[in-house]
Amino acid sequence: MLTASIKNLFAKVRKTEPLIHHLTNTVTINDCANVTLAIGGSPVMATSIQEVANMVQLANALVINFGTIDDEMYEAMLVAGKAAKNRGIPIVFDPVGVGATPFRTNRAKEFIEQVNVSIVRGNASEVYALIGGKAQTRGVDAGDVAISKTELAVKAAKELAAIVVISGEQDVVSDGTNTVCIRNGDVWLTKITGTGCTTASLIACFAAVTDDWFKAAIAGMSVMSLAGELAKKKLKDNDGIGTYRVKLMDEIFLMDGERWEEGVRLS
Amino acid sequence: MLTASIKNLFAKVRKTEPLIHHLTNTVTINDCANVTLAIGGSPVMATSIQEVANMVQLANALVINFGTIDDEMYEAMLVAGKAAKNRGIPIVFDPVGVGATPFRTNRAKEFIEQVNVSIVRGNASEVYALIGGKAQTRGVDAGDVAISKTELAVKAAKELAAIVVISGEQDVVSDGTNTVCIRNGDVWLTKITGTGCTTASLIACFAAVTDDWFKAAIAGMSVMSLAGELAKKKLKDNDGIGTYRVKLMDEIFLMDGERWEEGVRLS
Amino acid sequence: MLTASIKNLFAKVRKTEPLIHHLTNTVTINDCANVTLAIGGSPVMATSIQEVANMVQLANALVINFGTIDDEMYEAMLVAGKAAKNRGIPIVFDPVGVGATPFRTNRAKEFIEQVNVSIVRGNASEVYALIGGKAQTRGVDAGDVAISKTELAVKAAKELAAIVVISGEQDVVSDGTNTVCIRNGDVWLTKITGTGCTTASLIACFAAVTDDWFKAAIAGMSVMSLAGELAKKKLKDNDGIGTYRVKLMDEIFLMDGERWEEGVRLS
Repeated sequence: MLTASIKNLFAKVRKTEPLIHHLTNTVTINDCANVTLAIGGSPVMATSIQEVANMVQLANALVINFGTIDDEMYEAMLVAGKAAKNRGIPIVFDPVGVGATPFRTNRAKEFIEQVNVSIVRGNASEVYALIGGKAQTRGVDAGDVAISKTELAVKAAKELAAIVVISGEQDVVSDGTNTVCIRNGDVWLTKITGTGCTTASLIACFAAVTDDWFKAAIAGMSVMSLAGELAKKKLKDNDGIGTYRVKLMDEIFLMDGERWEEGVRLS
Repeated sequence: MLTASIKNLFAKVRKTEPLIHHLTNTVTINDCANVTLAIGGSPVMATSIQEVANMVQLANALVINFGTIDDEMYEAMLVAGKAAKNRGIPIVFDPVGVGATPFRTNRAKEFIEQVNVSIVRGNASEVYALIGGKAQTRGVDAGDVAISKTELAVKAAKELAAIVVISGEQDVVSDGTNTVCIRNGDVWLTKITGTGCTTASLIACFAAVTDDWFKAAIAGMSVMSLAGELAKKKLKDNDGIGTYRVKLMDEIFLMDGERWEEGVRLS
Repeated sequence: MLTASIKNLFAKVRKTEPLIHHLTNTVTINDCANVTLAIGGSPVMATSIQEVANMVQLANALVINFGTIDDEMYEAMLVAGKAAKNRGIPIVFDPVGVGATPFRTNRAKEFIEQVNVSIVRGNASEVYALIGGKAQTRGVDAGDVAISKTELAVKAAKELAAIVVISGEQDVVSDGTNTVCIRNGDVWLTKITGTGCTTASLIACFAAVTDDWFKAAIAGMSVMSLAGELAKKKLKDNDGIGTYRVKLMDEIFLMDGERWEEGVRLS
């Protein structure tokens, strides 16, 4: 059963402490490191093109995030991505801001062509832009897209030959054949930066400890949405996003198979 | 009346969610993103010279912060600044550390010459160095300057043809003709990093929703100083700057026209 | 007496507010700035090769951290390091991830050859790799090493002609002749990112106000370990690493000679 097998992944992450190599943006890099630690992984963030291939040899999963890419970072991402592909470790790709500028969109498409990414996590307009849809991502926020999120996830999963995770009010995860909807979350997850980026880190932690990356994607995405829900419940009057962010990190740290099973709503 | 018209800007920011493009430093970039979200804006931090001009086309204001500039970042700032100038969106310039090294001071002067910045926000010695004063900025902290802060703000506003905001125990905002002093704040705002940088983000959010950038500058600066004051009141015995920083973010998030009007002290 | 003379350093840091120039990684750069402020120093993080030598002229100590180095950053570190050496200010070197990739290990050895670093702070496998030991640093986490931590600290201090600080369950500080063990700490210090990096900032603050860098190293290292212990005691049920991180910053801010003397366990 889906929930039972995902439930077991939590202890596996905490026991094996998978090393998650990130090439990510400068905005939320600290959050990515702390969230990786909170769920039980070990983060490393080396970015020099001179060492990324070597670092990937030690890693159990790779996260590629386009938040603040430039040419130099992109070249290093290609090297790291190819090394990860050769090793067969999962590659989680976060196409931040794709659809906002041609530079971002073109590089993202090229990256997917050159590196078979395992899992793509983005918002609807980012994913839509990835498969050639005319979406206008507004900076790093989702814009409107012409098809439903579920349709989009299925279509993108097929076209990109990857697990696709679309974050939103409800999250959708699809491998092209199977599709799951996660009915957890809180609107305040959109009021702090980095909840998307760190979801990619969570997914990578789970993907590092199972061959079933579809389940890993559901696990990582739902941990964030559920933790966001639980953190909100802990707030008192006059708490704002400062306190929310602290409680969110607490909830990710406290999450285990039991808590997850009790709170998650999949369909 | 000044306070009445500023009061109305809060709801306008939260309603329109202006997109604030930042080219900023790696130290406080996460804080800038979260503060932008907390007041109701939407942050984007793309830095590649290949896309900044495109990103500016989507943006409602631009923040340029010199905290950790190098040649590559500076070139991208020039491109973004010129694009913003052409579009007529407000440009908030934060001359972090200007006066500390010739590199920083020269680049800042050159930047202002090439890009008509709308609003300059700095501490006294940074602003003094910008207009050719012999101030020794100590790293990123204010050094002594030879004239009063009010005189300096007026003089700098005239010479730079910009709104000038000088942060300090009391903050001064001048457009060269009109000058306002903000009598809010707390000394602990100097005990955490990023309260200056994030003030520039706040100013940009307000400047994005009004043509009166003088009022926007007062709004943004006073939100930080007032939030810093309110956050301090929420602390318990044995709380330190860790908790203060969390409460400060809460207070910015909770700030609206009513709270602001009740607490702000302008003269 | 050792504790008495270290005790006096706290007030000296808060009184003189030493300027600590950092060339550090993008993951924990914000934490380094805030921890420097929390103990009473003033952080600056300029990285351009065009200005680092000038910034060092204003600084009272220099921190070099290899977390996310690339060629450009490394060149700037060499320039800053040589300038600091010429001025005679203390240089704290944090060889993050050394032992994980040849790039990192080779650059670290070269750096030490070219710049006499004053104090090295790392985990056991990083320090072991620095002196040519066959340690496999796992990303940025300590791997196993063949000798005891105390032996390693003494040997490394002699070979590197520097004070050596090895963080771990117990911390060891050695100048090659004198060796001190710090019996404070909490395992949760390993569950958040940046407690190593920020320890280097603390050490730099103390080294900036005394000629006895051995004592400064003990002071900085023990502040982190003791603060980590005290922060843990402040947690309530269901608090996690989000809250812990906030309390840790509070405890560093609240630390003074008296609190330190009361809590520290040296041997």
